[in-house]
Amino acid sequence: MKEYTVAILGATGAVGTQMLACLEEQEFPVGKIKLLASARSAGKTLSFRGEEVVIEEAAPAAFEGCDIVLGAADDAIAKQLLPAAVEAGATVVDNSHAFRMDPEVPLVIPEINADDVSWHKGIISNPNCATIIALVPTWPLHKVAGVKRMIVSTYQAASGAGAPGMAELEAQIAAMGRGEAIPEPKAFAAQLVSNLIPQIGGFDDEGYTSEEMKLQNEGRKIMHLPELAVCCTCVRVPVLRSHSESVTLEFERDITLEEAREALAGAPGVKLVDDRGAESAHDRFPMPIDTSDQDLIWVGRLRRDISNPEAARGITFWCCGDQIRKGAATNAVQIAKLLV
Amino acid sequence: MKEYTVAILGATGAVGTQMLACLEEQEFPVGKIKLLASARSAGKTLSFRGEEVVIEEAAPAAFEGCDIVLGAADDAIAKQLLPAAVEAGATVVDNSHAFRMDPEVPLVIPEINADDVSWHKGIISNPNCATIIALVPTWPLHKVAGVKRMIVSTYQAASGAGAPGMAELEAQIAAMGRGEAIPEPKAFAAQLVSNLIPQIGGFDDEGYTSEEMKLQNEGRKIMHLPELAVCCTCVRVPVLRSHSESVTLEFERDITLEEAREALAGAPGVKLVDDRGAESAHDRFPMPIDTSDQDLIWVGRLRRDISNPEAARGITFWCCGDQIRKGAATNAVQIAKLLV
Repeated sequence: MKEYTVAILGATGAVGTQMLACLEEQEFPVGKIKLLASARSAGKTLSFRGEEVVIEEAAPAAFEGCDIVLGAADDAIAKQLLPAAVEAGATVVDNSHAFRMDPEVPLVIPEINADDVSWHKGIISNPNCATIIALVPTWPLHKVAGVKRMIVSTYQAASGAGAPGMAELEAQIAAMGRGEAIPEPKAFAAQLVSNLIPQIGGFDDEGYTSEEMKLQNEGRKIMHLPELAVCCTCVRVPVLRSHSESVTLEFERDITLEEAREALAGAPGVKLVDDRGAESAHDRFPMPIDTSDQDLIWVGRLRRDISNPEAARGITFWCCGDQIRKGAATNAVQIAKLLV
Repeated sequence: MKEYTVAILGATGAVGTQMLACLEEQEFPVGKIKLLASARSAGKTLSFRGEEVVIEEAAPAAFEGCDIVLGAADDAIAKQLLPAAVEAGATVVDNSHAFRMDPEVPLVIPEINADDVSWHKGIISNPNCATIIALVPTWPLHKVAGVKRMIVSTYQAASGAGAPGMAELEAQIAAMGRGEAIPEPKAFAAQLVSNLIPQIGGFDDEGYTSEEMKLQNEGRKIMHLPELAVCCTCVRVPVLRSHSESVTLEFERDITLEEAREALAGAPGVKLVDDRGAESAHDRFPMPIDTSDQDLIWVGRLRRDISNPEAARGITFWCCGDQIRKGAATNAVQIAKLLV
């Protein structure tokens, strides 16, 4: 079996370290691993398959000899460095926003549009975390009845702001727990413990944030639905690392709850967790503490949208997924596996 | 000016103690105050206008001589004791769910349907907290364009489960902050710190919780809109005492954003907090830490619902309000003021 030289750009962040773990877990055929990060981290080591790997400073020359580069850096560094990786002959799977809407770049959730990998020109983008977590369960329902409208409210974890976001929430919980003053927020615009911040990303002229528009823009591209209409409200919540979303869907055609349940129960990447009352010993539904550090999107609270005037065409559900894993690292490594 | 003998049933809970504070703050013409609670609290005291008032055990005979009774007990105690208060000649303003949907009982948010107080037969009900917080800002928009459909996702604070819910979240934050095991949850079905619980109340056959159906059922009665259609998802979040809601509205008639902004800016009980980007030094929007322990519903993130096929008839916004105050005690005391 062929083995590949794989580099991770931004190897020391929350997503980069998870990518390294996912390569090992998913038994990716890595011949040689290269860990690239800022000069500050160069010379330190990370463990891969039981061996310590020395981190190198990220620079264009570092991509020489690489077959696959996984990008876990921010937009600016992605734009600055990843074209050099393509020139060096590598195929890039990038988690930043930098290339996602470029018509020359496929944007891929393997459970939905794995075939789009075929037309890449060196770069494949990994979608936004909240987009992945909403679309993995929306897709099997779309295949039944054709989704045309989504109304989504998100409950997004601190991990969406990376390791510094998680550290900030943990420090705030510790301070509140000890009855001390909450340290000045840096990763977020305001205190997050015992609070909610209804802004993720900058505002556009219509009053939507960049994060809110990703679900419509990326959703249209991934599902090949140029007319998909999405109203999204993104909210940061004091949870460490699983995003949750309240999703209301409108379909082109009728869909029964039984059809929806069956489609979700058989869908790749989805775990249907939706027992209530008489059906089980206790009520069960997805919660962030249960969905953290695993790869599936859990779906529950599946029911009719009783407000939809076309009664048979509305469905609403609740889903949770690990933002660092399926929302980022796991999906990127799944894409890389499509390449080998 | 006439003075009234006022009793609070359930005076020692989170809502009862807040009712006592609201009577004082709103300068309610109290002649005599009676504080009623369980036998366990009888003999203890609470402070009112600088004097200590001894708590009495709640029993039918305790309502003798009362003009107004504020109910802050649970459904079972409300059903058991409040009819005796009516028989004793008092007018009851009850915060429990027990009488809300009784056609003989007005259900009142003073900013919306103060006139309904006129037809009471001894009991007036105070609506559910999440209902009040969503409807206070929905009403001025309804008056412009006629609301017909609401899609709402809630972010509900621990205080909705009363003082024990708040104490449980605080204990969990303290334990997590000290790196200790989270104490076994009692007030909630699961750990709340760093988690979300997408169930408030029991499930009906359609898969909605009792809390979720209140917004439609109570909303129809309060706004006199028997056809109002509401799809609600209620979620408990690790926040101490302000509820937040993501609200998407569909109207009968066109409404511009300018009309919506103007209606909200002039509406009683509402504070429009919606500055972004170039309009202000920094982005501002409602957050639970800012809306706790005050009486207004803060509204922001006001924008078009870009997913609505009738582009001029969809509006979406975010609102926060103190669950114990306007969600319960403040609204009840406002109703009582309509009676005097």
